[in-house]
Amino acid sequence: MTEPTPLPDLVIRHGTVVTATAVFPADVAITGRQIAAIGRDLRGQREIDASGQYVIPGAIDGHVHLGMPIGRFTSTDDFCHGTRAAAFGGTTAIVDFVETRPEETMLAALAARQAVAAEAVIDYGLHMTIGPTDVAKLDQLPAARAAGCGSVKLYMAYGLRLNDGELLRALAAAAEVGALPVVHAENWDVITTLIAANLAAGRTAPHWHPRSRPAELEGEAAGRVIDIAAYVGTPVHIFHVSCAATVARIAAAKARGLPVTGETCPQYLTLTDELYDRPGVAGALPVCSPPLRPAADRDALWRALSSGALDLVTTDHCPFTADEKATGLDDFSRIPGGVPSIESRLALVYAGLAGDRATPDPAALSRWVDVCCTTPARIFGFARKGQLLPGYDADVVLFDPTREFTISPESLHETAGWTPYDGLTVRGWPTTTISRGEVIVADGRWLGTVGRGRFVAR
Amino acid sequence: MTEPTPLPDLVIRHGTVVTATAVFPADVAITGRQIAAIGRDLRGQREIDASGQYVIPGAIDGHVHLGMPIGRFTSTDDFCHGTRAAAFGGTTAIVDFVETRPEETMLAALAARQAVAAEAVIDYGLHMTIGPTDVAKLDQLPAARAAGCGSVKLYMAYGLRLNDGELLRALAAAAEVGALPVVHAENWDVITTLIAANLAAGRTAPHWHPRSRPAELEGEAAGRVIDIAAYVGTPVHIFHVSCAATVARIAAAKARGLPVTGETCPQYLTLTDELYDRPGVAGALPVCSPPLRPAADRDALWRALSSGALDLVTTDHCPFTADEKATGLDDFSRIPGGVPSIESRLALVYAGLAGDRATPDPAALSRWVDVCCTTPARIFGFARKGQLLPGYDADVVLFDPTREFTISPESLHETAGWTPYDGLTVRGWPTTTISRGEVIVADGRWLGTVGRGRFVAR
Amino acid sequence: MTEPTPLPDLVIRHGTVVTATAVFPADVAITGRQIAAIGRDLRGQREIDASGQYVIPGAIDGHVHLGMPIGRFTSTDDFCHGTRAAAFGGTTAIVDFVETRPEETMLAALAARQAVAAEAVIDYGLHMTIGPTDVAKLDQLPAARAAGCGSVKLYMAYGLRLNDGELLRALAAAAEVGALPVVHAENWDVITTLIAANLAAGRTAPHWHPRSRPAELEGEAAGRVIDIAAYVGTPVHIFHVSCAATVARIAAAKARGLPVTGETCPQYLTLTDELYDRPGVAGALPVCSPPLRPAADRDALWRALSSGALDLVTTDHCPFTADEKATGLDDFSRIPGGVPSIESRLALVYAGLAGDRATPDPAALSRWVDVCCTTPARIFGFARKGQLLPGYDADVVLFDPTREFTISPESLHETAGWTPYDGLTVRGWPTTTISRGEVIVADGRWLGTVGRGRFVAR
Amino acid sequence: MTEPTPLPDLVIRHGTVVTATAVFPADVAITGRQIAAIGRDLRGQREIDASGQYVIPGAIDGHVHLGMPIGRFTSTDDFCHGTRAAAFGGTTAIVDFVETRPEETMLAALAARQAVAAEAVIDYGLHMTIGPTDVAKLDQLPAARAAGCGSVKLYMAYGLRLNDGELLRALAAAAEVGALPVVHAENWDVITTLIAANLAAGRTAPHWHPRSRPAELEGEAAGRVIDIAAYVGTPVHIFHVSCAATVARIAAAKARGLPVTGETCPQYLTLTDELYDRPGVAGALPVCSPPLRPAADRDALWRALSSGALDLVTTDHCPFTADEKATGLDDFSRIPGGVPSIESRLALVYAGLAGDRATPDPAALSRWVDVCCTTPARIFGFARKGQLLPGYDADVVLFDPTREFTISPESLHETAGWTPYDGLTVRGWPTTTISRGEVIVADGRWLGTVGRGRFVAR
Repeated sequence: MTEPTPLPDLVIRHGTVVTATAVFPADVAITGRQIAAIGRDLRGQREIDASGQYVIPGAIDGHVHLGMPIGRFTSTDDFCHGTRAAAFGGTTAIVDFVETRPEETMLAALAARQAVAAEAVIDYGLHMTIGPTDVAKLDQLPAARAAGCGSVKLYMAYGLRLNDGELLRALAAAAEVGALPVVHAENWDVITTLIAANLAAGRTAPHWHPRSRPAELEGEAAGRVIDIAAYVGTPVHIFHVSCAATVARIAAAKARGLPVTGETCPQYLTLTDELYDRPGVAGALPVCSPPLRPAADRDALWRALSSGALDLVTTDHCPFTADEKATGLDDFSRIPGGVPSIESRLALVYAGLAGDRATPDPAALSRWVDVCCTTPARIFGFARKGQLLPGYDADVVLFDPTREFTISPESLHETAGWTPYDGLTVRGWPTTTISRGEVIVADGRWLGTVGRGRFVAR
Repeated sequence: MTEPTPLPDLVIRHGTVVTATAVFPADVAITGRQIAAIGRDLRGQREIDASGQYVIPGAIDGHVHLGMPIGRFTSTDDFCHGTRAAAFGGTTAIVDFVETRPEETMLAALAARQAVAAEAVIDYGLHMTIGPTDVAKLDQLPAARAAGCGSVKLYMAYGLRLNDGELLRALAAAAEVGALPVVHAENWDVITTLIAANLAAGRTAPHWHPRSRPAELEGEAAGRVIDIAAYVGTPVHIFHVSCAATVARIAAAKARGLPVTGETCPQYLTLTDELYDRPGVAGALPVCSPPLRPAADRDALWRALSSGALDLVTTDHCPFTADEKATGLDDFSRIPGGVPSIESRLALVYAGLAGDRATPDPAALSRWVDVCCTTPARIFGFARKGQLLPGYDADVVLFDPTREFTISPESLHETAGWTPYDGLTVRGWPTTTISRGEVIVADGRWLGTVGRGRFVAR
Repeated sequence: MTEPTPLPDLVIRHGTVVTATAVFPADVAITGRQIAAIGRDLRGQREIDASGQYVIPGAIDGHVHLGMPIGRFTSTDDFCHGTRAAAFGGTTAIVDFVETRPEETMLAALAARQAVAAEAVIDYGLHMTIGPTDVAKLDQLPAARAAGCGSVKLYMAYGLRLNDGELLRALAAAAEVGALPVVHAENWDVITTLIAANLAAGRTAPHWHPRSRPAELEGEAAGRVIDIAAYVGTPVHIFHVSCAATVARIAAAKARGLPVTGETCPQYLTLTDELYDRPGVAGALPVCSPPLRPAADRDALWRALSSGALDLVTTDHCPFTADEKATGLDDFSRIPGGVPSIESRLALVYAGLAGDRATPDPAALSRWVDVCCTTPARIFGFARKGQLLPGYDADVVLFDPTREFTISPESLHETAGWTPYDGLTVRGWPTTTISRGEVIVADGRWLGTVGRGRFVAR
Repeated sequence: MTEPTPLPDLVIRHGTVVTATAVFPADVAITGRQIAAIGRDLRGQREIDASGQYVIPGAIDGHVHLGMPIGRFTSTDDFCHGTRAAAFGGTTAIVDFVETRPEETMLAALAARQAVAAEAVIDYGLHMTIGPTDVAKLDQLPAARAAGCGSVKLYMAYGLRLNDGELLRALAAAAEVGALPVVHAENWDVITTLIAANLAAGRTAPHWHPRSRPAELEGEAAGRVIDIAAYVGTPVHIFHVSCAATVARIAAAKARGLPVTGETCPQYLTLTDELYDRPGVAGALPVCSPPLRPAADRDALWRALSSGALDLVTTDHCPFTADEKATGLDDFSRIPGGVPSIESRLALVYAGLAGDRATPDPAALSRWVDVCCTTPARIFGFARKGQLLPGYDADVVLFDPTREFTISPESLHETAGWTPYDGLTVRGWPTTTISRGEVIVADGRWLGTVGRGRFVAR
C-alpha cells in the first residue's frame, strides 16, 4: 500500500462513457493492450481529451465479406482496405467467413483464410461456413471450434444451401461443440422458381429482384430453421432480417422462450425497394439479398431494434463495383449481390436510434451501444471486447455527436467507388478509434499499420 | 500528470466482479460515497480482500411493504428492522409505498411516509399509490414526481382498486409526468365473487385461497391493463407475476413491441400451492396474493426469468406474525396476506439461476445480477445505483458462492418469527454489504446505524 | 301404399333453393304451418311460381329492440311495425329482450314483455336480460329458461352493466340451465372516463362518439368475457362486433377450441365513422354503440364473415327519430344510440357477400343464408326455423336477385323517418315472405294480420 | 294439379334424418338414381322401414389408396374389394389417386387409373398427383381438370416429393384451374436424415419410426405449404393431420382468414404410438406416415374435430399384409406404410363424437355427418353427393345406433388380413347402404355388382 501505482499508458479524459446499460462521465485508462480502469479523475502518461464526445467500446461487425470470391467477382474491399474503412467508422472487430473447398479440411481452409486476412488492421473472427460438401466433415467441427471458430454459417440459399436434413445435422453438430449457428434464411427453391418465372416472362430489370424473394417466405425460412433448431435444442441467430414477417417469427420464438436472436443491417434500416426502380446501373447497385423492402418493413425493423425483437446490427458488407453490378442489367439474377456499409453502420444506427434529439435519451444511447458493440460481442463470442471493462481489450471509440458528416464515396474509405448512402448527411460521427490500446484513427487521419489485426478465437 | 492521485478510501480487491453483462476479475475503488474506479491492481487507503467472492452491485428490491398498516394489522418489519434484514441479504435499496389519505395531499402523505421511513438503514424510494380517492388529486402528481416519486402504484384489487376508467386516468397522468405505473393485476370482482361463493359453501380453509384467485384471470387482468396502457401510450410494469397465464400476456406484449415489463418474487419461484393444504396455521402462513400456484406455473416463471419474458425479481415483502395469520383460520379471506422474503431474495435467485453448477455459467451469473440489481435500478429509476460504475453510489455486495446457509427464523434478521423457506439450505450467501461507501454488514455482523438510509428521488 | 297422398296446401315451384350448404333447384311443399317436403316436381293445392328467384329459409334477426324504453325515449318501431318491416325485408323471426324491474320476477317481466309483443306479425323470442338487480334473482333463471328464454343478455356497458364478478355469476347460472350468454362487450369504465374527458374539454360533437369508445378496448372487453366464460366453461356469443380488434379475440378463442361465437350488423359492414363528421343532425343519426369504425375495420368484418371468424349477422335494430337524435347535438353522449336496419339486413348482406357478381358463387350464396338464417337459428335456439326441412316451420322467403331496390325512408316500412342507407340502391330484394305457411308479404303488398306472431320458446 | 304424381321408386320411412345442420324425423324418397324428396309421410313403390335408425348421406372418403403399387408392394384392397368394404362401412364415394409416369400424359394416366378402377362398386374420384416429373407437364392440368380431376395431390415427402419451388408452381397451376391442392405435409429432408441416423446407430425397430418423423416438423411442413399457398393465393387442404403441432398451424391460418382446411384419420383419432413397441410384426403393422402419436396428440385431434380446427375425416386407407409389413422388421424404414380403415371410419367417428351418450347430442350427430359426409363432399368437389337433397345422388346410409359390432379381420370385408382395431367393440354400425338409388348392402348382405361404380368428375 505504499509504493505508487504506475500511471496507465493512456487515459481518455472528460468524455461521456456510454455502455449498454448506462451513460456517465468517466475516464478510461489503458495500459498496454487492455483497459486498466474506468474511473473518475484518472491520470495517465498520455491523455486524450474527450470533452463533448461519447466514449464507447469499439463497435463489432459480426457479418462482413472482405475480398470474398462470390461467383464471377470478388467483393471489393480486401481485408486491408475493408478493415481500415471499418476502423474509420468506429468498428474495431469484424467477423468474416471461412469456406472450405470440397477437397480441403476445415482447419486448412481456416488457415488459408487467415492468411488472406493477414493484412487486417483490426481484430477479426471467422465464421466456419458449413456448405453441402462440409456436412460429411462435421467430425472436423470440434477442431475448428477449438481453433477459434465459435460460430457456423448455414445457408438456406445459394449454392452453399443446406437442405433441411443437412441443416439439422449441422445444427446438431454445432450444438455438440457449443458453436453458434448463424443462418441466411430464405426459401431458395421458391426464389429460384420465381426468378426463372420472371426471367422467362421477360421481367429482367432490378425491379423484379425483390419480387422474386417474397418477404413472407423469408419469414417462413426463418421460422423453419427456428423450428429445426428448437427440435435440436440449440440457439440460432438469424442473419440480415429485412422484413416484418421475419421479425414476427423471431419475436414469437422469443415469446416462447427459445434462445433465438436476430440482426438487421443499415441498408434495411435506411433504404427501401423503390431504389430498384431507378434507371440504369443505379437500380442495380442496391441489389442485395434479402432485398430492400417497402417502407413499412423498414419501419418495423427500427421498432424491433428498439423493443428487443432484434438484437443487433451488422452490415453484411459485400460490395461490388458499379461495373460489376452493371453486368446484370439485362438479368437481375446475375447482378452480384451486396452493398457496402462497413464504414457507416455506427453513425447510421446512431442517427436512427438516438440522433434525432438535441439531447439524446440515455436509454437510446445505451441501446445504440448495445446493438452495435456489446450484444454483437456477446453473441458472436468476443470474450474480451464489446465492453469497457478492466482487462478487456482496449478497443475504444470516441464519437462526436455534433460532427456533421456527408456520406459519399469520397468521404468514406471503402473502395467500391459508390455507396448506397451517397449524399446523406448525418450528425454524429466517430473521430478516434483505438484498437488494443493503439490509436489507429485520430481526427480522420490513419495512424495504424497494415496487418496489425489479430485473429480472435471465439 | 505530475502530482500524485490520492488513494481511494476503500478498495475491494481480488474479487470477481459480476455485472449484468460480464464476469471479470477486477478491483472496485470507493472514494467517499461513490465508486471511484473499477480497475486492475487498484490500491486504497483501506482494502478488503474479496478473493473467491463475487463483487456485485447492491441488490434493489423494488417492491416491499415495511411497517405498513394493512387492514387490522401492520406488516411486521418496520423500516429499521426490514431494511436491516434487507442489508443482511445483500439488498442496498428498496422501494416502499406512500398511501394518501382522502383528506391529505400527496406531498403531505409523502412527507409522512418519509418520517416513518426515517429509521431506514439503507436507501429507499417510494411508489406513490393512486387509490380511488387519489384520482381526483392527479393534478398533484407532477409535484409528487418532482419530489421523487418516479413511479405510481395502481391496484386492480382490494379497497385501493381502481376501475378501468380510473386506471386509464391514472395511467395517462403517469405518462404525462413520466412516472412508471406499477400494477397489482388481478380481477377483483371475480375474486370477491369466488371468495363469497366459497365461504357461503363452507369452504373456509386456506386451500380455497388459490381457488378463489384463478391464474387465468390474473392473466386477464394483466392483459387488460396492458391494453389500456397501450391505448394511453405508456410503459407499464406488472407486479408479482405468479403464473404462466400472466407470463404469456407479457411475452405477447413484448413481441408486439410494447414497453411492458414484469417481475416475479422468490415465493412464486420457490413454493407451490400445496403448502395451503398443510394443517393449522402452517397452511395459512404462505397466504399471499396472487397466491402460490402449481409447480407448472413455478417452472414457467424460472423459464420466463431466464428468457427475458420476465425482467426482474422483487419480494413483495409483507410479513405478518403467525398469530395474525391464525386469525383467518376459519375464513381464508381474512388471513392477512403476505410473506417475508426481503433477506433471502438474492440468495434464492442465485440458487435457482446459477447455483446449481459447480462452476456457474457466466451468462447465468450476469442474469442473476441483472434481475436482482441492474434492471430493478433501471426500471424503478435509481439513476446512480444497480451498477458498479464510477460516480455511482458505492452500494456493493460481496457474495460468497461457497457459503452454505440454512434459512430459519433464527438465522435471518426478519422479525415475523417465521419464514416460508424455513429449513432450506442454500449454497451462496452475501457476506459483506456496503452502502454508499460504508460497510454496514461484514461477516454477519451489523456495523450500520439506524436512520442512515436516505430517500432517493427517482 | 294404395290410398293417394293428399296434396300439400302450398307448393313453391321452380325456384332455386339456397341452404347453408347447397344451392339446387327444388320445390318446397307446405302443409298447414309446416314444411311438408322438399322435392322435385311437387304439386300442391296452391302453387307459387318462384322461377328466377332464390327460395330460402326466413331470415332470423337475433338482436332487435322494438318499442323499447331506453333512457328518455322509446325506440320507434313497436312490435307491430317493427316486425312488419322485418317481414318486408325477409325476416320471419326476431329475438328481442326482457328487462326485469327490481321489484319484479323474471317470469312476470317475461309475461309483461310478451304482452307488449302481442302485436307482433312474425314469431319472436326474448333474451332474458340479467342486469345488476337481477343477479340476486339468478335462482329464477331455471324458470325463465323453462318458459322459453334460451339466452341471457349480459351488458358490460350502460346502467345494466354487470361487473366481472356478476358476469361470472350470470355466466355460471346460464351454463347451469344451458342458456346461451349473449354479451354487449365494451369497457364501460373506460368509455365513461373518455366521455367525461371529452365533454370537459368541450368536445361535444358526434365526431367524439367513436373517439370515446376505442376499438382496442372493445376487443379487450370481448377478450375478458371470453376469458371468464372459459373459466366458467360456458359458450358465449359476442354481440355487434364492430372492429378488427374484437374479431381477433374471437378468432383466437376459436383457434384455441373455445365455444365462442360472434355477430356483426349491417351498419358496421356498410358504414364508417366519417358519417359522424356530417353537419347537424346528420352526424348524430348514425350514433350507435359500439360506434361505426374506420373503413379498415369494416373491411375486416367482411373478411371475418366470409372466413367464419364471425358467425352471423343481426341488426341491433334500435331506431330513434331525428328529433330525438337532435337532443344530443350539444352532447354526443346524450344522443340516443341505435340505428334502424331491420328491413334491409338480408339484402345488404346479400349485396356484400354474393351480389357483386353476375352469377353469384354458390358458396357465397350459402354463406349468405348461413349467416342470416341458419346459424342464427342454431345459435339462438330456434329448433324448427332457419332451415327448409320437413316438419320445420314454413317460414320461407323468395328473394329476387335481379330486383333493384333503392333504400329510402319511403321505400322501407320502418317508422324512424330516416335510414342510414338512404339513397343506396341494391340489386336483390325479397319479394315474398311466408310465415308459418301464411303468405304475409307478396310483391310488396302486406297480407298479414296484426298479432299473428307467436312467442317461441328457445 | 289434377293428375296424380307417380309414386317414387323407393322411400325410406320412419327414420331420423341426420344432416350436417339438423336432426329430424323424415322420409327420403328416391326416384331412379336421385333423391326425389325429403318429406313427411312420403309413400313409394318400395319402402324401407328405418325406424330407430339414422338416415344419413352416404359417407365420403376423400383419401384412399386401392390396389396402389407403392415401392415393392401393392396395397391390398383392389378397387373391387376396397370399395365393397367401404360400402359395408357406409361409404358411398371415395377419392383415390392418379400417378403419371414420366413418359405418360396426365390424361393417359387418368385413363389408365380409371381402367384399374373399373371394378369399383361405388362412385369414385381421382386426385391428380403432381410429382417431380409432372411439374414440367403443368400445362396438362387444365385438361386433367376438365376431365374431372378437381384436386391435385402434392407430396412433401417420399420420392414424389416436390421441393418448395415445385410446390409453388404446382399450387399456382392448381389455383389457375381452380383445383384444390391436397398435401402430404412432412419435412422429408429431416425425416431421411433422422432415419439414416437411427439406422446407423442400430435403432432399427418400429419404435424408431415415430421418432424419425417429429410432430413439430410435421407442423412446420404444414405451416410452410400454408405460407406458400397464401403467397400464391390458393386454398390448400392438409392431409392426415396426426398431431397438435399441425392443428395449431391450421387453426392459426384459419384465424388469419386463410382458406385452409385439414383432415385427420381414424388411426390418429384412435391409436397411439405405444403400439410400435409391441413385439414382432405387431409393432410393425401400424406403421403409417405420419406415424401414430402420443395420447396428448390424439386428444387434441378430437378437440380440433369438434371445434372446427379440423374439417373432416378420411382414412388414408392403404393396407399391406402382415407378411409385407414383416419385411421391414430389421429396418423400420422399409416397412410398407399404411393401415386399413376404409370400413370402420364412419362407426369409429360416430363412437368418438356422438356415441358415448345414451341419447346422442343432436349437434354431435350433425358434426359426425358433417365431417364424414357433407364437408368431404364440399371440399373434394362432389357436387351432388354428401347431402340428402332433391336431385342429389341417392347415396343414403342407414345407421343403427344400437347395433354392437366387434371389429376383427373376420367381421370386416377388408382383405389385409388384419386390422388395427382388432377386438374393439363399437356401438353403432351401418346396416344399409344405398348407392345411386340401389341398395347394395342390406343387413350385412352384399347386393351390389362389381363395376357398378362410376368415375365422378369433380
